[in-house]
Amino acid sequence: MNNSLKEIAAAIKNSSRVLLCGHVVPDGDCLGSVAALGLVLEGMGKKVVMASPDPLPENLLFLPGAERFYTGGNGAGAGMDFDTFIVLDCSVSDRLGSFKKYLDRQLAVINIDHHMNSSDFAHYNYLDPGAAATGEILTDLIGIMGARIDREVATCLYTAIVTDTGSFQYENTSPETLRKAAMLIETGIQASRINVLLYEEKPFQSIQVLGAVLDRMKISACGKVAWSVVEKAMLDSFSAGVEHTDGLINFLRTLKGVEVAILIREMDTGKYKVGFRSKGEVDVHRLASRFGGGGHMRASGCVLSGKLDQITEMVVGEAVKEVSQKGTGG
Amino acid sequence: MNNSLKEIAAAIKNSSRVLLCGHVVPDGDCLGSVAALGLVLEGMGKKVVMASPDPLPENLLFLPGAERFYTGGNGAGAGMDFDTFIVLDCSVSDRLGSFKKYLDRQLAVINIDHHMNSSDFAHYNYLDPGAAATGEILTDLIGIMGARIDREVATCLYTAIVTDTGSFQYENTSPETLRKAAMLIETGIQASRINVLLYEEKPFQSIQVLGAVLDRMKISACGKVAWSVVEKAMLDSFSAGVEHTDGLINFLRTLKGVEVAILIREMDTGKYKVGFRSKGEVDVHRLASRFGGGGHMRASGCVLSGKLDQITEMVVGEAVKEVSQKGTGG
Repeated sequence: MNNSLKEIAAAIKNSSRVLLCGHVVPDGDCLGSVAALGLVLEGMGKKVVMASPDPLPENLLFLPGAERFYTGGNGAGAGMDFDTFIVLDCSVSDRLGSFKKYLDRQLAVINIDHHMNSSDFAHYNYLDPGAAATGEILTDLIGIMGARIDREVATCLYTAIVTDTGSFQYENTSPETLRKAAMLIETGIQASRINVLLYEEKPFQSIQVLGAVLDRMKISACGKVAWSVVEKAMLDSFSAGVEHTDGLINFLRTLKGVEVAILIREMDTGKYKVGFRSKGEVDVHRLASRFGGGGHMRASGCVLSGKLDQITEMVVGEAVKEVSQKGTGG
Repeated sequence: MNNSLKEIAAAIKNSSRVLLCGHVVPDGDCLGSVAALGLVLEGMGKKVVMASPDPLPENLLFLPGAERFYTGGNGAGAGMDFDTFIVLDCSVSDRLGSFKKYLDRQLAVINIDHHMNSSDFAHYNYLDPGAAATGEILTDLIGIMGARIDREVATCLYTAIVTDTGSFQYENTSPETLRKAAMLIETGIQASRINVLLYEEKPFQSIQVLGAVLDRMKISACGKVAWSVVEKAMLDSFSAGVEHTDGLINFLRTLKGVEVAILIREMDTGKYKVGFRSKGEVDVHRLASRFGGGGHMRASGCVLSGKLDQITEMVVGEAVKEVSQKGTGG
C-alpha cells in the first residue's frame, strides 16, 4: 500500500533518532538521497545517522555529509537507539546488505523508492516508478515537509537525479525532472562542477582498463549484442581495482546497431558479476531477473558462478534471444 | 547593435524567400537551429532553403529536414532569388564558408547567435552570449513569432540545446535552459531516442580509433594537460575517416587532474586541426585565439601548418602556461 507524501512527511516529523540507508554497491541516487534527507532532518534538530552497506565510490566523496557515512561495524551509528529507519532507493530488503537487521528491531520503517518495489518490509511506503530518481521524490517531499533546500541539500538531490537519468538522457527524464533540476540549480549550486566531479575525474587506470575492454569487445552475429570481459589478471596488470571498471559497460552500448551491452567481470575465482545495459528498446531488467539479478529497464545485473566460457555463452545467448524477440514485434 | 527579439521577428515576417545557413563543420546547434527555423518559416508559407557550407555529419541525419539541406554547388538553392539571409550560430562571417558570398547580394541579413559575435556583417542582430545555444534563442523567437512548436521543430531545437550543453552538463546550462528543454519534451518528442541517435550509434571504426588515441595519450609534467594525435595513416589502418574522430577529444578530458585536453589531427600533409577542450576552469577560447582559431570557453580549435612535433610542442606549451597561470590565481 502506498502512503501519500503528506503521510510520509508526518511520519518523518514524528521521528527523533533516525537511521537512513540506501542499497549495496551505492550509486549517486541512493547516496545523494540519504545525504539530502539526512541533512534536512539534522536541520530540524533530529539525531541522524546516514548509512551505506558498502563504502562510497571515490567520485561521490564530494557529496556534503559523505565523510560521516556509517558503513557498519563500530562507528557513529553502532550504539544509537533509533526510533525510525528510512530505507531509500532499495527495491528489496536484501539490498540493505548488513543493515537489513534493523528491520527486525522495533523501528518505524519508511520506504521511499522509484523502483518497482516489493514494499513488504516497511510500515510506510512511497513508491513512484514514474519518478526518475529517489532524489526526485525527495525534492517534493522536502518541500512538503516545509524545509528549505539549501546548496548542500541541492547538491545531493541534483547528483541523485543527474546520475540516475544518465545526465537527463534516459526516458525516465520527464519535463518535471528537468524543472526540478532547474529549481535545484537556482539555489546557487555549480552544477557543471558537480558533473566534472562525477564524470571527468577518472583515474589513469580507468582509461587503461577501458582500452583493454574495447580491445576484447565482441559482437553477436546479429550485431545487436556487444560484450566484453574484465578478468582479475587484467586489472592486476594495470594495478587497477573494481572501481576502475565503473561505467565501462556504457561504452559497449554506444556501438551502432547494438541494443544490449554486457560486461562480465571476474569477482573471485569462478564467480562473475554480469552487467547488462540497454539502449531502451530491450528490457534488461527482465534479462537479469532470469539469472536471479535485478535493476532497471536500461541497467541491470546479476552474479553467476561457473566457468567463464559457459557463463558468457549463456548470458549472450539469452540476450540475443531477447533482442530478436523484440525485433519481431515481441 | 542588438535588436530586440520582436524586431527580429518582424524582420523575418517581412521576408518571402529565405536562405538560412549555419557554420562550417556543422554541429547539432547550427543544423538544429537552421532546420527548426526553416520548418517554421515553411509553415508560414515562405519559400525556404536550409543550407550548410559542409555536409551533415551522419549522426545528425535524423533531424527533420536533413535530407533537404543545400550544401552549395547546383541544387535546390542555387537559382533562387532570395530576399532574406538568416545567419545562425556563426560568430564571424568567415564561418559561413562558401555561403559568405550571399552577404554581398542585396539581401536583408539577420544574424542570430549565442557566441561572442563580431556582428559587423548583418542588418539585424540578436546576440545573446547568455543563451546556452542558438536553439535556445530560437525557442523564444518562435514563440514571439506566434508559431507553434510541433514535434519536428521541437526535435530540432532539443538537439540544438542538448548538443551545445554537453547534455546539460556545461555551465552554460541555466535553469531557463532546462525549462525550455522541459517544454520541448512536452510536445511529445522522444528525447531519449534523440540521445541514442546522437551519442550511441557509433560506427565500429570510432571505437577502434578511440582505442588507438587512448593508447597514444600523453600527459604534461604538471598533470593538467592531456593530448593525443590522430594521423592519416592511423585512420587509414582502420578504414576510418575524419567522422570517426568526432567526440574523441572529450575522453582525454575525463582524466583526473586534467584541465585542458588537446587533440591534434592531421588534415593534409603538414596541416593539422588542433582541438582544445576545458573542464571549465581554463578558457580555451582564449588559447585557440592565440593561434587564429575560435570557439567557446570550453571547446575551441584552430588549424596550424608545420611539423607535427613543433606544433605539438607549441600548443601543449601554451596550454601548460595557460593552466599554470590559472593555478596561481590568473
